[in-house]
Amino acid sequence: MTRPTHPIRSDIAWSTADQISVFGRDLPTEILGQVNLGDMGFLEITGRLPTPHESRMFNAMAVCLVEHGITPSAIAARMTYAGAPESMQAAVAAGLCGLGSVFVGSIETCARLLREGLPDPNMQTDLNALAQQLVTQCREAKQIVPGIGHPLHKPIDPRTPRLFEIARETGFAGPYVALVQALAIAAQAATGKTLPVNATGAIAALCCEMGFDWKICRGIGVMARAVGLVGHILEESRQPIAQEIWFRTEDEASAHRRPKSG
Amino acid sequence: MTRPTHPIRSDIAWSTADQISVFGRDLPTEILGQVNLGDMGFLEITGRLPTPHESRMFNAMAVCLVEHGITPSAIAARMTYAGAPESMQAAVAAGLCGLGSVFVGSIETCARLLREGLPDPNMQTDLNALAQQLVTQCREAKQIVPGIGHPLHKPIDPRTPRLFEIARETGFAGPYVALVQALAIAAQAATGKTLPVNATGAIAALCCEMGFDWKICRGIGVMARAVGLVGHILEESRQPIAQEIWFRTEDEASAHRRPKSG
Amino acid sequence: MTRPTHPIRSDIAWSTADQISVFGRDLPTEILGQVNLGDMGFLEITGRLPTPHESRMFNAMAVCLVEHGITPSAIAARMTYAGAPESMQAAVAAGLCGLGSVFVGSIETCARLLREGLPDPNMQTDLNALAQQLVTQCREAKQIVPGIGHPLHKPIDPRTPRLFEIARETGFAGPYVALVQALAIAAQAATGKTLPVNATGAIAALCCEMGFDWKICRGIGVMARAVGLVGHILEESRQPIAQEIWFRTEDEASAHRRPKSG
Amino acid sequence: MTRPTHPIRSDIAWSTADQISVFGRDLPTEILGQVNLGDMGFLEITGRLPTPHESRMFNAMAVCLVEHGITPSAIAARMTYAGAPESMQAAVAAGLCGLGSVFVGSIETCARLLREGLPDPNMQTDLNALAQQLVTQCREAKQIVPGIGHPLHKPIDPRTPRLFEIARETGFAGPYVALVQALAIAAQAATGKTLPVNATGAIAALCCEMGFDWKICRGIGVMARAVGLVGHILEESRQPIAQEIWFRTEDEASAHRRPKSG
Repeated sequence: MTRPTHPIRSDIAWSTADQISVFGRDLPTEILGQVNLGDMGFLEITGRLPTPHESRMFNAMAVCLVEHGITPSAIAARMTYAGAPESMQAAVAAGLCGLGSVFVGSIETCARLLREGLPDPNMQTDLNALAQQLVTQCREAKQIVPGIGHPLHKPIDPRTPRLFEIARETGFAGPYVALVQALAIAAQAATGKTLPVNATGAIAALCCEMGFDWKICRGIGVMARAVGLVGHILEESRQPIAQEIWFRTEDEASAHRRPKSG
Repeated sequence: MTRPTHPIRSDIAWSTADQISVFGRDLPTEILGQVNLGDMGFLEITGRLPTPHESRMFNAMAVCLVEHGITPSAIAARMTYAGAPESMQAAVAAGLCGLGSVFVGSIETCARLLREGLPDPNMQTDLNALAQQLVTQCREAKQIVPGIGHPLHKPIDPRTPRLFEIARETGFAGPYVALVQALAIAAQAATGKTLPVNATGAIAALCCEMGFDWKICRGIGVMARAVGLVGHILEESRQPIAQEIWFRTEDEASAHRRPKSG
Repeated sequence: MTRPTHPIRSDIAWSTADQISVFGRDLPTEILGQVNLGDMGFLEITGRLPTPHESRMFNAMAVCLVEHGITPSAIAARMTYAGAPESMQAAVAAGLCGLGSVFVGSIETCARLLREGLPDPNMQTDLNALAQQLVTQCREAKQIVPGIGHPLHKPIDPRTPRLFEIARETGFAGPYVALVQALAIAAQAATGKTLPVNATGAIAALCCEMGFDWKICRGIGVMARAVGLVGHILEESRQPIAQEIWFRTEDEASAHRRPKSG
Repeated sequence: MTRPTHPIRSDIAWSTADQISVFGRDLPTEILGQVNLGDMGFLEITGRLPTPHESRMFNAMAVCLVEHGITPSAIAARMTYAGAPESMQAAVAAGLCGLGSVFVGSIETCARLLREGLPDPNMQTDLNALAQQLVTQCREAKQIVPGIGHPLHKPIDPRTPRLFEIARETGFAGPYVALVQALAIAAQAATGKTLPVNATGAIAALCCEMGFDWKICRGIGVMARAVGLVGHILEESRQPIAQEIWFRTEDEASAHRRPKSG
């Protein structure tokens, strides 16, 4: 084989007998006891530790995505735990596998729309006109406007005003927060429906405010939901529901096929 | 079918049009902006928010497990991302699947040994005698003493003294911390090897100090490592190594079989 | 670093520009068009192609494990697909994660019991006495006798007599098939319950007859169920049920917590 | 809650105390011992059993995708097994997670291109002209022509002529097989490169010949690779390579950061 060899290199961490360094910081003395788990997530995403304001905002965004009660992810994790209780990690993994285009994807799509609509946050722009243009663009492409509207939380998503309040307190209530709000108003005007900014739209705007690449949004959802799925698996171990869901589903799903005397 | 129906019940969270409640707390007003991601993990595990001391200790334990550089989990996640870059969540899931008996398992095994050795932390006990007894018990069962010794970090694991320092500052340096240290001394005396308390042993002892069930230890490792794997996938997206590892491995693995002129 | 390097070697397959060899056979000319997918599974497990009798028996064992209607695995796969329809492979993966100790594990446990009870199939033994001894051993260890009894399929599991009929036709109805049947009789005598050999017990016995290591049984279940899960995901894509299961579960699970006017 | 309830229904299988039916066939008497694992995959995808010609063709397509030696999927599975040897199913799952757009996706993309280019296989068309048009279309969209070219297998992919030979023997060498070959010729003419039809292009064409939806192609790859990954995990359990890959990668990846005396 004459294939040239390329170097293998990672800049995340290194260890020696008496040292462990993570993103250039000594893990025992510069990280442990000084940063919380959300800050560590910020460090993994940006390569640096957050300022106090960034820490408060980022932790609020991640915490917001941890728990939503019984979701498809939580059901998948609980079903998996029922079959393999010795492999809790695989149950969390099964739950994470479904965080794709339908759920976490809306953060990604919304962040991309906002960022591509307003590539430079310092540019003076008529945000209402831009929002109308983005709504028109979505509607012409026959796509829903991402980050807007919620099947249950009407007329507002209660997480959104609180996230934007924290944004004002920490200095992150900038043009993307204004743009996503203008987007909701423009979408409501165009459709006549009640379409508040939902939590994923709010988090998408805040990711843009913090300067994150839109591709990173999914990662925040994944780390947050892993935390929540551990809670669901613990509850399943103490107060199981997977078997009952399974039995009821199996009974009903094939009832039309099963012989009557069965 | 005459199968009786059992109720389906979860006490983690509920939502209405204008409210979201998690473990009995209003998510927008009582959680967002007030707790960090580690505290949210504590809430998922215990059903209550941590005290400031608990928050500092628990976050340090979780943060300690986030990042270890290039691990088998990180390689699995990067290999998966190389094949399915549109499914970052599945790459994190693949990385988590390997957090089983070999790696995270040692926390679990150590916590169980400590807890079963000392079921009541308030009981007056000769910890040195107990440690010797536990070491003897492991050796007679031909099992290694869990939480002790490290292939790289010698003569001490640099994370351990720092975790125990934080434990002293937060009031968690109790009998289980003393017991795991006595265990290391007893194991060194019995084997003649250098066997420091490693980070998994330290975290196991701290889980016991915090009153956690030993079954919960794996969950802390799983939520922490999900955070770290997101970082590895981001680096892989910018500075890939998976393909080079694959090509080198494939070349070498089948070289002995491949015809020489191939 | 002075760590010695160990060789990396795999004997499964190799490729050159014009050749692909799998377990020593030329893939295009010696495998494609000549062997079926079950035979390929046999090749992966044993390193050789099956005889016609082995092919028929092994394919029947694998086929028997492909499909069981709505199982926890199928529900986990469908939930995952609902969130990430662009990643069908991750939905199959989520479904496989639950094939642990509770379901596929019973094949493994039963095969191990049979093999450790009768290490040499050619040894003359009183199988009824051995079966009684194994049942006593399980009961003293407060374990259920694996491979025996079924919650739904009574008084017999309809798959078992058919698998044993194929075993007679192919020459695999040997001492392990006799032993698992004696085990069922001994267990019924000891408990007074109706405890037929179930499909996992039958397959466990047949794995022993074919000379497979008991650790391999789980692999047969995993490859078979991957085939079935693809079918469930295709049905979910055309006739979805995941969302309805989710909504019903969420409604009921938190009804006791939700305010009445919610 | 006033949400209307929708029925939950699956038509794949049903069971009673003495019967198990899969796609309308009695599992014990009409399936076991009569169909092989590939036929069972065909049944899961189409809802009917294959004819002998379909069985031979489909099994060849699936078998072709089972094994490719050391791939990123195999490495991910082996890494996972090294950490959680008690959860072989999770190791297979980790390996499957990477069967996304990069590898199995090319079958899907190619099948879609062929099917959308020639929606009705009975239509008289100038396939060379159509192929040139499809190549132009790909090049204008700055996309590679899928199913064509291979980094290693040059000037031909040895699997392709054999798959097409089986197609001729079984009556599946129709217009899509001709079109994918015309596509390769048109792509070579347009680029001046050596671009044979590769195995994924051949399988994509054969999926079209068999009347499969292009969305189903990924499922064939997933079921096939699950079979192969079981083989890799068994080899890893006997002749491990994961730890050596890990150690070498870790050493090299962070060497530039680690202090020299470390």
